[in-house]
Amino acid sequence: MLRVMQDTAKRHLYQGKSIGFVPTMGALHEGHLSLVKRARSECDIVVVSIFVNPLQFGQGEDFERYPRDSEGDREKLLRARADILFAPDAAAQYPESFSTHVTVSALSERLCGAFRPGHFSGVTTVVCKLFHIVRPVSAYFGQKDYQQTVIIKRMVEDLNMGVEVVVVPTVREPDGLALSSRNAYLSPAERKAAPVLYRTLLAASQEVKAQAAPPVEIKARMHAALLQESLISEVQYAGVYDPATLEEATEFGKRTLLALAVKMGSTRLIDNLLVDR
Amino acid sequence: MLRVMQDTAKRHLYQGKSIGFVPTMGALHEGHLSLVKRARSECDIVVVSIFVNPLQFGQGEDFERYPRDSEGDREKLLRARADILFAPDAAAQYPESFSTHVTVSALSERLCGAFRPGHFSGVTTVVCKLFHIVRPVSAYFGQKDYQQTVIIKRMVEDLNMGVEVVVVPTVREPDGLALSSRNAYLSPAERKAAPVLYRTLLAASQEVKAQAAPPVEIKARMHAALLQESLISEVQYAGVYDPATLEEATEFGKRTLLALAVKMGSTRLIDNLLVDR
Repeated sequence: MLRVMQDTAKRHLYQGKSIGFVPTMGALHEGHLSLVKRARSECDIVVVSIFVNPLQFGQGEDFERYPRDSEGDREKLLRARADILFAPDAAAQYPESFSTHVTVSALSERLCGAFRPGHFSGVTTVVCKLFHIVRPVSAYFGQKDYQQTVIIKRMVEDLNMGVEVVVVPTVREPDGLALSSRNAYLSPAERKAAPVLYRTLLAASQEVKAQAAPPVEIKARMHAALLQESLISEVQYAGVYDPATLEEATEFGKRTLLALAVKMGSTRLIDNLLVDR
Repeated sequence: MLRVMQDTAKRHLYQGKSIGFVPTMGALHEGHLSLVKRARSECDIVVVSIFVNPLQFGQGEDFERYPRDSEGDREKLLRARADILFAPDAAAQYPESFSTHVTVSALSERLCGAFRPGHFSGVTTVVCKLFHIVRPVSAYFGQKDYQQTVIIKRMVEDLNMGVEVVVVPTVREPDGLALSSRNAYLSPAERKAAPVLYRTLLAASQEVKAQAAPPVEIKARMHAALLQESLISEVQYAGVYDPATLEEATEFGKRTLLALAVKMGSTRLIDNLLVDR
């Protein structure tokens, strides 16, 4: 499977065809499909990988119960006119002798990284592998995982990988909840309450635009708004950040990142907005 | 320079030309030129990089005084019929924002790794970058840096880089001393004494072939032989190792690695032999 993918990629490369790549963990939703659509519009060949990457899950995280739906995924990708589905198995990706890691320091320790040690090293390692196998000209990632996009861009630049990293806007439910495969974990009551994340970001974005208050006050209001929702059991982070360094903003730049991560019961939800002045 | 190299590599790739790559730190000697010769015989285009990589030198090591001879190198490469000399500068390779590292665990901590913390991570990071820029089909490394070749092979396999790593036999002076740019540091007396490294390896290899003694005894005799030379100020390691894992051998396998690292004054010298039964 791996060898077939490599040979196919090479053949397309030699024929001068551009490969657009959408790496996913499956359980595909409209967010993923918007990435496929964008790749379809920009590249000759669209490759989608489905791989629930054990390396990016920490101990006690949801690797085992992460939603899997290979039949449904396959059908959705057919309809979205993806050309190639690459679904390697973990044993081939990580044989026993495996011992190489790609790490992006600093950026990987902030925001989600502080709560998921090793997570982003797992992400950059697998993305580096997948880029080598698939050889894309462009790779497509959702803005929902904003930190991930910043880290992958840094890796690509630092390692001279020559892949264009395209960030595609977050797709949301009508009530504002960002699409995520993990939304399937939510109870009906949690699902009903979950749009508070987006509402909190929207309210904060108004304040950023108006520069109605300093970042630290906006952060405090975000925390307060989230904690008013009794189904939120923990606010891991919420606040105003520099979109390049992911550090907490002390003043407003040209572009501001609003980002948050909360737990609703055992489900971890993240969301973010970029606000331009 | 970097962009030019990338575009050139891509052009050759699209034309179906095979690129053979010899990464070096310059101060070229016959050892390097044997790599170029091998690449020349196997590939359409031969690229040689010269880059004294700061990332692989530790504090207090010889980065500053490492021999540099760009004029002489250029001439040697012309004569050896290399096609492209790629000599990037450190500021382009490592801009201020640089924060990505490629590390191969376990293998990188053994032998030289124990005495040069961070060294092999510096090597794998730069080789990963160079492979992305140069896009070789095959890359050529000298057996003199045996541990380096094992680590790079592991990286290439783990990260699905699709580069063939070719290991070329060590080139030696008539008296047995392995060629190394660092031999230039040796005083006349040290230079005269230095062949004790190769003699020690040869004597040990006879014992391995005859299985005359268990590995631990051969190791002891190697240490004793080296320490008899008064100009050797430190034996960092010397012994019998598994050529795949680089761990100390407790019994003889099909293939045995004999390896050593010593200091002669301030000069660090390494050498090794592979012994087949």
